[in-house]
Amino acid sequence: MTSVALDPAALLDVALDEAKTGLDEGGIPIGAALFAADGTLLGRGHNRRVQDGDPSMHAETAAFRAAGRQRDYRSTIMVTTLSPCWYCSGLVRQFGIGAVVIGEARTFSGGHDWLAEHGVGITLLDDERCVALMTDFIAARPELWYEDIGEVTS
Amino acid sequence: MTSVALDPAALLDVALDEAKTGLDEGGIPIGAALFAADGTLLGRGHNRRVQDGDPSMHAETAAFRAAGRQRDYRSTIMVTTLSPCWYCSGLVRQFGIGAVVIGEARTFSGGHDWLAEHGVGITLLDDERCVALMTDFIAARPELWYEDIGEVTS
Repeated sequence: MTSVALDPAALLDVALDEAKTGLDEGGIPIGAALFAADGTLLGRGHNRRVQDGDPSMHAETAAFRAAGRQRDYRSTIMVTTLSPCWYCSGLVRQFGIGAVVIGEARTFSGGHDWLAEHGVGITLLDDERCVALMTDFIAARPELWYEDIGEVTS
Repeated sequence: MTSVALDPAALLDVALDEAKTGLDEGGIPIGAALFAADGTLLGRGHNRRVQDGDPSMHAETAAFRAAGRQRDYRSTIMVTTLSPCWYCSGLVRQFGIGAVVIGEARTFSGGHDWLAEHGVGITLLDDERCVALMTDFIAARPELWYEDIGEVTS
């Protein structure tokens, strides 16, 4: 275990790399990663709605999936570039993921307060890079963004 | 639109078929299906933890995924053999799925009351076939069941 590995900002960099990869692929730029308590990376991923035509692969879900079958999530840390939506918040609660590190909640605010009420440790970084990434994306592709969060605009 | 197609018990039969397929494959016997308001089947699926080594594919998520990208879920109906866990309840809430038909909530009770509080139409059928399927499965493979809901038993 290294202290660097568990620095929230360092963990966020992995999720941010995933978000940028998603953007480069033409997708929605949200990334996430699941870490063990000792800083071991268990899984990482990004939103795959566009790339795979798969609406179920939000970033947190993709990271959770990449980590494969685990027996105990209590000491794991989910790191995500954006506040988790209800779907991904439900994932965190159901599987007992112990902590969530969030890049930003300015462009979208999901269920992180609800998770905190249910005992999940929440770290909100308000990272300017994450804010800029989503602000630019929402301005460029609003219809894709609203589709991804199930918001009906017309 | 036919009245038969929108009879909750008839919709449940599709989800129950999925659950039985999952059991036959050696998996966890939970099935689901997503229907349009006119009874059109949009997607169906079953839990794939064992089959794909994929902890993110709960039955409801698998059905949602099989339906592909949709722009408006408000008039859709999610049918599932078992009360949706927090993960799948979060899916329903985030994407604004209008109604959930549930086979049973005796062997497991997830977030369906929470969904009802948030305006989702809930129909709980208390179907004996669904109860028997899960009762037998939990007795036979408790460790697999608890893994699937993130419950730590030791």
